[in-house]
Amino acid sequence: MTAPPLSSTARSTVTRLPERARTDRAELHAVLDAALVCHLGVLVGRPGSDAAPIVLPSGYGRVGEVLYLHASTGAGWLRAAAAGAPVCATVTHLDGIVYGRSLFAHSMNYRCAVVHGRARLVTDPDEHETALRAIVEQLSPGSWDHARRPTRRESAATAVLALDLAEASVKVRSGPPGDAAEDVAAGGRWAGVLPVRTGFGEPQPCPRLEPDLAPPPHVRDRAGPA
Amino acid sequence: MTAPPLSSTARSTVTRLPERARTDRAELHAVLDAALVCHLGVLVGRPGSDAAPIVLPSGYGRVGEVLYLHASTGAGWLRAAAAGAPVCATVTHLDGIVYGRSLFAHSMNYRCAVVHGRARLVTDPDEHETALRAIVEQLSPGSWDHARRPTRRESAATAVLALDLAEASVKVRSGPPGDAAEDVAAGGRWAGVLPVRTGFGEPQPCPRLEPDLAPPPHVRDRAGPA
Repeated sequence: MTAPPLSSTARSTVTRLPERARTDRAELHAVLDAALVCHLGVLVGRPGSDAAPIVLPSGYGRVGEVLYLHASTGAGWLRAAAAGAPVCATVTHLDGIVYGRSLFAHSMNYRCAVVHGRARLVTDPDEHETALRAIVEQLSPGSWDHARRPTRRESAATAVLALDLAEASVKVRSGPPGDAAEDVAAGGRWAGVLPVRTGFGEPQPCPRLEPDLAPPPHVRDRAGPA
Repeated sequence: MTAPPLSSTARSTVTRLPERARTDRAELHAVLDAALVCHLGVLVGRPGSDAAPIVLPSGYGRVGEVLYLHASTGAGWLRAAAAGAPVCATVTHLDGIVYGRSLFAHSMNYRCAVVHGRARLVTDPDEHETALRAIVEQLSPGSWDHARRPTRRESAATAVLALDLAEASVKVRSGPPGDAAEDVAAGGRWAGVLPVRTGFGEPQPCPRLEPDLAPPPHVRDRAGPA
C-alpha cells in the first residue's frame, strides 16, 4: 500500500517560504525516524477561558502512519491529551548555522516535521506493547531485547498515546546563505554554513554495575557521530 | 536587583517527579543561554471552536527577564501570538540516554526550561534592535559586529515578540538509571548513560565567497564540541 502524499489542510500548509515545504510522505518518515526527541504541544485548560498550550519534550516511536508517545499516568498534560484535546508534535533537526554577509540573510539549516491532530489513548494490550517497543527502539535500539521487559504493573503505569500522521507538514532548509547580489558583490564579509552535529560520547557505566560487564554492542557501537 | 525565584503557578509547577524541578532563576537563565533553538507553542484558531496548539522551532535571545523571538511578518502563527494568544516556549538539552537494567528504568538525562505567558509585539525601535542583537548573538556570537546590519526595510520585515520569564519552570534529570534493587541484584544486564553531545563541524564557505576569505575567529573557533 502506498501512503498518500502529505496533507494540505490550512494548518499543515506551509505559508511562509513554501519552497521549503516537502510533500513526500517518505520525507516525513525520514525526519521522524532520525530523531530522539519530539516536542509535544497540548492544549490544556478550559477552552475560551484559561486554555493555553504547554510544550514538553518527549520520546516517541513511529509504526507505519502512527506516532506513539508515552507518559507516566501521573503526568498532568496526559489527561488533557488522552481526553482528546488538540495536540501538535514537532521534530526538529538543526543541521547548520547559516552565516550571511548580512544579518538579514542569517538563518538555520534544518529539517522539521509538524504533526497535528488529536491523540488516542491506547488501550489494546497488543498495540500498547508494539508502541512501547517502537518508543524504546527509537531512543535506544537494541534495548528491547537486552533489558528486562515491563511487568504488568509497570505497563499499567505507562500510558501510551497514538497520533495519526494524516495531517502533517515537513519543512527543510539546506545550502548556503541567500544573500542579495549587492552584498555578494560588496565582498569582505565571510559567509557560509557551520554544520551542527549531534553525536554520542563514551558509555558511562552505572556505579552499581558489575565491574566486569562491558557495554554491549548496541550501546558501544553508538559512540561517535549520530 | 536580585531576580525572584521561579514561579509556582498551577501550570509552572512540576507535578510529575517534582524532585527534578529547580527553583533557582539562575538555572532558568543557564538552560536558556546554552541552547540554539526553542520550540514555541502558540494557540491558533478560535477558542472553543478550532483552537489548537502549533509548535515550531525558533531562534531566540534573552535580555534579563525577557525572552525575545523573531519572525517574518508573513508567518501565520505570528498574527495569533502578536494578538495576545497564550504561548509556551520550551528549550530542551538532551544530555544522555539512560540505559536501565529494566526497560521501565530507561530514561533520558536532560535540562528543560518551559516558559508560559502571552507575548508582546515589540514596537519600540531601540528595544527592537536590542532584541535582534540578542537573537543574532545567541545563534551566531560575533555576527552582530561582522555582518551587515539590517536596513530599515529589513528591520520592518522582522517582527519581534517579547515573552516575560515571570512564569517558568526548569526540570533536570542527570545521573545513572534508577533501577530497582532486585534488578541490580539480578545482574547480567548493562546499565549506564550514553552521553549525547551537540557540536559544530568545519565551516563550509558559501560558493559565492571570495576564495581568499578565511572564516573569521568567531566562526572558525566554534568548530568542535559545543
